[in-house]
Amino acid sequence: MKYVYFFGQGKAEGNGQMKEVLGGKGAGLAEMTRIGLPVPAGFTISTEACDFYFKHDRKHPRELAAQVAANLARLEKVTKKKLGDAKDPLLVSVRSGSARSMPGMMETILNLGLNSRSVEGLARKTGNDRFAYDAYRRFVQMYSSVVIGLPKDELEQKLRDLKNRLNVKDDTQIPASGLKQLVADYRQYFKQKTGKEFPEDPQEQLWGAIGAVFESWMGEKAVTYRRVEKITGLLGTAVNVVQMVFGNTGDNSGTGVCFTRDPSTGEKDFFGDFLINAQGEDVVAGIRTPMQLSEMAKRMPKVYKQLEGVRKTLEHHYRDMQDLEFTVEDGKLYMLQTRTGKRSPAATFRIAMDMAKEGLISQGEAIQRIQPDDVERLFYPVIAPATKKEELAKRKIASGVNAVPGAAGGKAVFSAHEAEDWASRGEKVILVRRETSPEDVGGMHVAQGILTATGGKTSHAAVVARGWGKCCVVGCETLDIDYSKKLMHVNGRTISQGDWLTLDGSEGTVYEGQIELARPEPPKAYSIVMSWADKIRKLKVRTNADTPFDARRAREMGAEGIGLCRTEHMFFKDFEQPEKSAERQLAIQEMIIADTREARQRAIDKLLPFQRRDFIGLFEAMDGLPVTIRLIDPPLHEFVPHERSQQEDLARKIGVPVEKVIRRVEQLHEANPMLGHRGCRLAITYPEILEMQVRAIIEAAIECQKKGIEVFPEIMHPLTMAKKELKILEEGTRKVADAIISEHKVKLEYLVGTMIELPRAALLADQIAEVAEFFSFGTNDLTQTTMGLSRDDAGRFLPEYVDEKKAGVFAGDPFQTLDQQGVGMLIEWAIQRGRKTRPNLKVGICGEHGGDAESVKFCHRAGMNYVSASPFRVPISRLAAAQAVLEEKSAKRKPRTKARC
Amino acid sequence: MKYVYFFGQGKAEGNGQMKEVLGGKGAGLAEMTRIGLPVPAGFTISTEACDFYFKHDRKHPRELAAQVAANLARLEKVTKKKLGDAKDPLLVSVRSGSARSMPGMMETILNLGLNSRSVEGLARKTGNDRFAYDAYRRFVQMYSSVVIGLPKDELEQKLRDLKNRLNVKDDTQIPASGLKQLVADYRQYFKQKTGKEFPEDPQEQLWGAIGAVFESWMGEKAVTYRRVEKITGLLGTAVNVVQMVFGNTGDNSGTGVCFTRDPSTGEKDFFGDFLINAQGEDVVAGIRTPMQLSEMAKRMPKVYKQLEGVRKTLEHHYRDMQDLEFTVEDGKLYMLQTRTGKRSPAATFRIAMDMAKEGLISQGEAIQRIQPDDVERLFYPVIAPATKKEELAKRKIASGVNAVPGAAGGKAVFSAHEAEDWASRGEKVILVRRETSPEDVGGMHVAQGILTATGGKTSHAAVVARGWGKCCVVGCETLDIDYSKKLMHVNGRTISQGDWLTLDGSEGTVYEGQIELARPEPPKAYSIVMSWADKIRKLKVRTNADTPFDARRAREMGAEGIGLCRTEHMFFKDFEQPEKSAERQLAIQEMIIADTREARQRAIDKLLPFQRRDFIGLFEAMDGLPVTIRLIDPPLHEFVPHERSQQEDLARKIGVPVEKVIRRVEQLHEANPMLGHRGCRLAITYPEILEMQVRAIIEAAIECQKKGIEVFPEIMHPLTMAKKELKILEEGTRKVADAIISEHKVKLEYLVGTMIELPRAALLADQIAEVAEFFSFGTNDLTQTTMGLSRDDAGRFLPEYVDEKKAGVFAGDPFQTLDQQGVGMLIEWAIQRGRKTRPNLKVGICGEHGGDAESVKFCHRAGMNYVSASPFRVPISRLAAAQAVLEEKSAKRKPRTKARC
Repeated sequence: MKYVYFFGQGKAEGNGQMKEVLGGKGAGLAEMTRIGLPVPAGFTISTEACDFYFKHDRKHPRELAAQVAANLARLEKVTKKKLGDAKDPLLVSVRSGSARSMPGMMETILNLGLNSRSVEGLARKTGNDRFAYDAYRRFVQMYSSVVIGLPKDELEQKLRDLKNRLNVKDDTQIPASGLKQLVADYRQYFKQKTGKEFPEDPQEQLWGAIGAVFESWMGEKAVTYRRVEKITGLLGTAVNVVQMVFGNTGDNSGTGVCFTRDPSTGEKDFFGDFLINAQGEDVVAGIRTPMQLSEMAKRMPKVYKQLEGVRKTLEHHYRDMQDLEFTVEDGKLYMLQTRTGKRSPAATFRIAMDMAKEGLISQGEAIQRIQPDDVERLFYPVIAPATKKEELAKRKIASGVNAVPGAAGGKAVFSAHEAEDWASRGEKVILVRRETSPEDVGGMHVAQGILTATGGKTSHAAVVARGWGKCCVVGCETLDIDYSKKLMHVNGRTISQGDWLTLDGSEGTVYEGQIELARPEPPKAYSIVMSWADKIRKLKVRTNADTPFDARRAREMGAEGIGLCRTEHMFFKDFEQPEKSAERQLAIQEMIIADTREARQRAIDKLLPFQRRDFIGLFEAMDGLPVTIRLIDPPLHEFVPHERSQQEDLARKIGVPVEKVIRRVEQLHEANPMLGHRGCRLAITYPEILEMQVRAIIEAAIECQKKGIEVFPEIMHPLTMAKKELKILEEGTRKVADAIISEHKVKLEYLVGTMIELPRAALLADQIAEVAEFFSFGTNDLTQTTMGLSRDDAGRFLPEYVDEKKAGVFAGDPFQTLDQQGVGMLIEWAIQRGRKTRPNLKVGICGEHGGDAESVKFCHRAGMNYVSASPFRVPISRLAAAQAVLEEKSAKRKPRTKARC
Repeated sequence: MKYVYFFGQGKAEGNGQMKEVLGGKGAGLAEMTRIGLPVPAGFTISTEACDFYFKHDRKHPRELAAQVAANLARLEKVTKKKLGDAKDPLLVSVRSGSARSMPGMMETILNLGLNSRSVEGLARKTGNDRFAYDAYRRFVQMYSSVVIGLPKDELEQKLRDLKNRLNVKDDTQIPASGLKQLVADYRQYFKQKTGKEFPEDPQEQLWGAIGAVFESWMGEKAVTYRRVEKITGLLGTAVNVVQMVFGNTGDNSGTGVCFTRDPSTGEKDFFGDFLINAQGEDVVAGIRTPMQLSEMAKRMPKVYKQLEGVRKTLEHHYRDMQDLEFTVEDGKLYMLQTRTGKRSPAATFRIAMDMAKEGLISQGEAIQRIQPDDVERLFYPVIAPATKKEELAKRKIASGVNAVPGAAGGKAVFSAHEAEDWASRGEKVILVRRETSPEDVGGMHVAQGILTATGGKTSHAAVVARGWGKCCVVGCETLDIDYSKKLMHVNGRTISQGDWLTLDGSEGTVYEGQIELARPEPPKAYSIVMSWADKIRKLKVRTNADTPFDARRAREMGAEGIGLCRTEHMFFKDFEQPEKSAERQLAIQEMIIADTREARQRAIDKLLPFQRRDFIGLFEAMDGLPVTIRLIDPPLHEFVPHERSQQEDLARKIGVPVEKVIRRVEQLHEANPMLGHRGCRLAITYPEILEMQVRAIIEAAIECQKKGIEVFPEIMHPLTMAKKELKILEEGTRKVADAIISEHKVKLEYLVGTMIELPRAALLADQIAEVAEFFSFGTNDLTQTTMGLSRDDAGRFLPEYVDEKKAGVFAGDPFQTLDQQGVGMLIEWAIQRGRKTRPNLKVGICGEHGGDAESVKFCHRAGMNYVSASPFRVPISRLAAAQAVLEEKSAKRKPRTKARC
């Protein structure tokens, strides 16, 4: 079995397609070598070796040692240097790299091969004592913390102590003698902590580093990152052993990271950071604030030009925006990494659109480059445009680097763990740190926004936040943070933990207190790419909306009808005339308390005009589009007060003794309301409710029709479980509807259908389709019943079920992304069976899953006619529906085993 | 279409097989005619006509009038009499009769054809004025109440008033003139109430009667009876129009009902009641107390001998015990009905066994003649044998006819409706009536026992109660019941409504107050028939038992292992040492309140010895048989106190602040506990509970093995929904178990399996079977989730769903009898898929359905290995399992469309 792949001197055993085996970094190095870019030589140990390591109790495959030795020998031959050599030592970096980018989540060791002998050789060979000892101290420091696990802070502290003793600010100001002393300190500390000498043998160093990189794959931060990013199915990390090149040999050297286009806006600008006389870690860590590329162009024009060429080559080669790492060693450019660059949501659309227009990619590819989160984050808030200038000026406390656009507000919290605690209590927080590190990823994820005192646009905080589209301001150097006191001083003011901050990530501004935020207008590229998607998709996209306001908004977002109107929401609130809400609520409560059919009917009669007006508003908003109205669904106890004082109030208002109200409320109590007297079971036991609702719908439709509005009402019965049950409801519905229609002497088409939200209904869909003209899968309840999982209660154990490190039973929350195996099997069965009975059966989905991209794709494959999503998720569904078509096409082109997870 | 079938003069168009079309009575009359028994001529209007009537808005089929006219003409020809004739009128009875016997639930009109002219003809022809006017008054009375709906009571009252005026006791003592006057009174009353004259036209009378019989099919009492008896799928009732013969022409006449064997004991005795000079209604209604057949043998030896011959002929012909009605008219015997006789459970076994031994039927047929209810009722209670003679003597207040054996206790209630009310509040009641009528059937059904002042063993009360195996004492003539005051006087004592009575139906004794009851020893015939069943069945029958006591009892009932031991019951109660219950409960509560793993472990350690002892008891009781132990299943909140005072008590005992207890109890509250943190989800989050339970099981098994007991533990994980979840549990289980086994250096086989009780588990059974060695279908929860139906809450609407007169969505309660269409589909799928993965997968059922006969048959067809039932239902399951085999065989013999409801 081949575990090691060499690259160097224009040739590579691997290539850019081999990400799964070589990791992104390894594949990129191999590919860049192949296309003639300047890449230092090296070799990659495959992810398969990592997989073997974890599957075999942390043992390496037998053949690995020989393969590493052979490739090391080859590297030594190519570089004409020897690892550990006392005269001209080969130094290597040992870096992780998995198939999916996990920035900063795994480990790296630089300058490996140095020991007390070879450091002297390096010093002699480069004629630079300082450089050699700086490289050595970095290696010892990294090795101690990464491979051995000594505390990073204490090692850093020694460096800081040294600088304090020497009274210097920059690391570069420490003389060789100081570094020599630091190395000695580190080695002594190492011995004291481990009882052993720091390893001198380069082989021991190398295998230690390889093991540490593998281990970091299962480190807490990497596992957390994969969970948060829903990365699954990878073998592990590869290990890249590459000849060191040095950006810290002097002012003709440097190191940088750059993006081939602007990752924030997507504009076609070359964009990046560069540090003179530094190693790569310095840029990424954000410890020193780097210069922009335009500055580098001035300082190193020749190298910059070469880099510009590389930029063009790679973008054309990869047909996507690239994120590059490079080092300049004594004026010579070396490319150390290329990967697809993370970008802001707006940039995602802009780059996709531009590249399609440039002819670099097709429109279909442009659509496939958009992730659901990109759409969602595109609509992340901004400072409300109406906010007064003076107020902003008054509240502004600092400026930093505008790392990720969007605005956010929350309470300042100074540690990632506390941020998680606060967020779990429902608090909105802004995570404030000097700089962030991969350990902070959990707290960063729950924060509304991130603010750091140091770092540039490519610092850890910026890169991670950008990936999430989360508002982020970095390099805000005026912040003086005191972690121990949980506060910061800034421009004379003090912000304590819990004080509200508002960030503007587009401007890089920090405000004190709460400022109103608003949803932004989407960029032009968004509309263009979405219009491409609309042309491609087969699924219609409707919306779940209960009010004319939501309906209009959803229509703006591209909804093609209402897939679910929950009529009961109207019982609580009058959306158009809020002052009438109490009157409505009273009528429904009176209906529930009533103990004769007559009294119930009287109360229901009061509701009729309200409901009719509601439906008129919806039909108006959806002129020309279908509107699916679900009849009353929740158990009645949700409508009555449970507090004694409210019960007294209700009793007084409807003129019955309070005991009667109390008794009725008690009667309504259920052990498992989810499985209780709700859904169409209410219409079976109280047919007068059904009659009123159907009357309101049909009368509203007729009234709208008379005004010239096109109406397509679809009346939906929830929670059916048997054909006969639905038959009773359907007959009841048609009896009322047809009588009104013939009374008004009009023509009105309407459909009667049902939700499929119980396993029994799905199983017996062939029978149910004899009655139903349409099915709408209520996947919230179908998930609850199929999995026996109460959405309200699953919080106690579901996180453990989803956590890869714990039970890891499911890849994700089945209430967010459809359980395609179990619930999906029922859906496919029901569609197949239903269409067998009624070939033109209209089928849709109206659970939360209708706005989840993966679930929408499933719906497309399952042959649904439409999905219905909440207004703001409509664009996600539109896009996913188009992606589903594109994926299907490419699956047909490349036949493969059926892709079902 | 042929709607009318003639019979008479030894020939019949119908036959005994045509029950579905002719009803039981019509088929019996046709068959008896064919085999040469003396049957008056007549014709039967088919059930298809009834079906048509209700399907076409109460219109008769077009061809019916002509067919009735033609058959009436034929009847007139055969009898040489004419309906309504002024000289020698033909009189007919018009009787209902459906395919399934519904005694007294539908209507009958006798003596039809009489009017003011023909009554005179009849009087002249018979030379018996009194007889003619008695017949006429009966007809007018019946017609008025049955066809027109005038109140029966008021009509009866006129008869009673007349007797009072004449100062006579028996109807027979009223002279002709009195009857004449009564007819006049009735006709006047009729006119006053209806505004019309009583119909003189015999055709009008006939069609009125036919309509009334049809209507009675949908009458409340008939519908109730069908619901209670679960009779479905019938077309309707037939109408039998038969020449009247008269048992009331004098002392050489009479009428009787009899059974070819004793319906109480099953002994081969001719058994029945006979009334001299009476019409059939008088026997059935129980108004006069009749003589026994032995008495009749003395009074009418010739006719009795002929009847004896009929008895033999019919029993051999029908190969079953028959229930006969006959009339003797002037010394001539007429058979009016034969049908399969209802019998007590003990008689059912006895007759089946005897007939098989006599060679009349096969052993298989004997088994198929037993209904599940027969088994259940066989074990109905008797007066505890240990009860002191003196106590019985002291409490005895009356003696009556021992109509249905068994004993019962409850509060005396004097009306059927009130009995239903009381029972719905959970009260046990004894229904006490002068006599019962079909209107009382609802109250009879809910009563523990029935007591009447009049009637014999074939009275309405006796027949209905016998069908249900419900304790019944009739003809207790010393009861003086006052309905208006809701009390009765008996032998100087007064029993008010609500006073406790105990009945002994075997002796016919009524006791005042509560006497201890006990389960009886089953009769010999039971053991013999059950042993035949055991030889035939393929399914094993296990039991659901949580205690050694239940396990031993179930074994006595024939259980072949434990299919479900619910370990959590042991947490509440120490069944062997009740004084230790509090200690156990405290330990489990301490475990739940614990907030660290260590504290939890300490509490769990206290539980271990208790659980181990429980399991030792079970293994001992089930020596040589498998024992399936389900690990903890219910949500933890079921174990903690919800009352403040108990919480304080608990806090004190386990030494924590009460706030902590309260907080934890609140935390445990769930919106839908059925779908919450329960089942194996507990073992996933608290693996230490799993470890303790597995340890207790395995240590107990090893200890028993050492004592020479054969143990076959099967460890069962509840509520799994995914393969990976079960894999974690299985590994956890085996890790603990195997460590203990190897530590003890013993050999112990055990299985690890799972319940299939969620649709997802059933759907993905192929995957789950990769881990599970057995499946046990938890059909209680599987029904709840598949149908979205909470068992605890369904009471609000399920009755309506099951009521044929209301929604009628389901034929029966799906928690009693498995929903074979929906839930059954999942079960079949899961078995098929599971066995595909693991061909030797052991499959059983442990929900309530394991003790329901229809569901057991389904389990057989679905290919399960065993069913598990509660101890007292084990015999039902054994029998049903045998019946399933027999049904399968006969289905193979007569190929037909797949019988699935």
